This record gives sequence, C-alpha cells and structure tokens, in this order.
Amino acid sequence: MSVVPALTPEGLLAHWQGHRRLTRRTIEAFPDEELFGFTAGGMRSFGAIMDEVVSLTEPLLHGAATGEWSWPPRGAGTGSTTREALLEALERADAAIAETLPRVAPERFLAHDTPVPGRTESVIATLLYFIDNEVHHRGQGYVYLRLLAIEPPPFYVR
Amino acid sequence: MSVVPALTPEGLLAHWQGHRRLTRRTIEAFPDEELFGFTAGGMRSFGAIMDEVVSLTEPLLHGAATGEWSWPPRGAGTGSTTREALLEALERADAAIAETLPRVAPERFLAHDTPVPGRTESVIATLLYFIDNEVHHRGQGYVYLRLLAIEPPPFYVR
Repeated sequence: MSVVPALTPEGLLAHWQGHRRLTRRTIEAFPDEELFGFTAGGMRSFGAIMDEVVSLTEPLLHGAATGEWSWPPRGAGTGSTTREALLEALERADAAIAETLPRVAPERFLAHDTPVPGRTESVIATLLYFIDNEVHHRGQGYVYLRLLAIEPPPFYVR
Repeated sequence: MSVVPALTPEGLLAHWQGHRRLTRRTIEAFPDEELFGFTAGGMRSFGAIMDEVVSLTEPLLHGAATGEWSWPPRGAGTGSTTREALLEALERADAAIAETLPRVAPERFLAHDTPVPGRTESVIATLLYFIDNEVHHRGQGYVYLRLLAIEPPPFYVR
C-alpha cells in the first residue's frame, strides 16, 4: 500500500499508552472512599465507570488482532470495587496493550470488521472509539474531582 | 514511505468530523440559559469551555498545514456568549476542517514540529491531542447535562 499514513501503529500505541498513564493518575487522584462512593447527577461512580472501560481492553485487543469480536455482558466490568483492585486490573489491561497491539498485523487497522452487530467500520475506527470512550469518561471524572474540591491531574501530561 | 498506515488522512477527517457532529448535538442539548449560565465544581460553563475549544480549530489547522504555529491568548475563545453565536463559530470552524485538512500534505502528519514552546511531537500527535481535548471537555458537558437532569446525546452516534 502506498498511502502515506496519518498515524503509524507505533504512534497509535504511544497515543493509547499516554492516555492510560493519565487515566491511572486520575484514578489515583480520588480518595479511596470516593472512587467507588461518590456520584453526581444520577451517574455511576468514577470507579465503576473506569472498571467497565478497563474490562473492555482485552476483548478489544483480541478483536483487533483476530477479527473475532465478543464482549462481556454490558456493565459487568472486571468486578473491581476497591482502588487497589481497579489499579491492578488497569495494570493487567495495560500489559495486554503492550503485548498485543504491536502484534496486530499492520493491514488489520484499515480492514473492515463488524465489532458489534449492525456496525461495520475499520479496526482503527473501533480502536479510536474505545480510546475516546476512555477520554470521555475520564473527563467526567475530572468534574467529580472538582466537585470534591480536588485538583485533577494536568491533561497535557501523558 | 512503505509503512502501512494505522490511520489515513481521510480516516482522520472522518474521525474528527464525527466528533464535531456529537459536539454540536451536545451544545444543542443545553437549554439556552444554561449553556453559558450553568457551572459546577468551580469550573467554567460548558459554553465558555467549548467556545475556547472551537477557537483553537483554525490555528491548529494552520499549524498542521504550514508548520507555523501561533495561538490566541489563553481563554480568549471566539467571544461567543450565546448559543446562537457559539453554533455559528462551530460551523465556521467545521468549514475550516473540511477545507483545510484535506489540503495538508500527507507527509506533514508524521513530521515533527514544536506547536508550543518546549513540546516537540508529530503533527498527528498534536491533532489528536486537540481532538481528545474536545472529547474530554465534551465528557464534562455530559455531567453538566446529568446535573441538569437532561439526557445527553448518545456517545456512539456520530
């Protein structure tokens, strides 16, 4: 393929890992009891939201690598209910990114799959969708921190 | 260059434009008086935050296209203080994306620039940073909407 890339596989890995570092700092910014205890506007706790985000990492990587897509039941998460457990789940998910993403065959990124029924798109679109989902929910965590009068970590540090 | 791309310039355009459509729907979900009137946790209104995000679009595109980077004074925004003005500014910014991004020379995306002093990175990293910044702040808007007991637009519709 002679297309000049806008983003390389290595660039995608660095992009995602940068976000993961910021996600970790955001989780760590919550006091223990507030991570799964504080809510606002009828939403879930930041811990519960991030536990679901983290739980989708390995199914996402598996689908990207193999074209076989399957997801845990909606809202299942990893079952983490403490900061320690969530940070451990995050560490396992981050290890899966570091191991699996570099092994995705480069031609997979522009291949079209159907990761969920009725939605056919390029694998890179699916990957970016889930990274964006993490950014979106982490932004919500920043509001929770502000409501708790806690300064969130700087967005520009990755 | 023989690298297989993870993302093409056309894919990047579609990705950004999808986010812009969701950003528009999020702005439209706010009642007129709450867009610039409602705040939480000591943060700015969603209108003020998004006005700043929108104001950075054209400097970002100009830098990506030319390598000449300059930014408006921090917090200046477009000066919009009503929903109508903000939606007009968004429309102008979206037109700039549609016009300028396809004219960025493909080899620019992986070129390294210094968009702000002390920060040297690929042009694609800078572009993704600002798209992520929009996603991050839009996620904050979702919390504001929830606090106002308003259902935000579905995240998966672009």
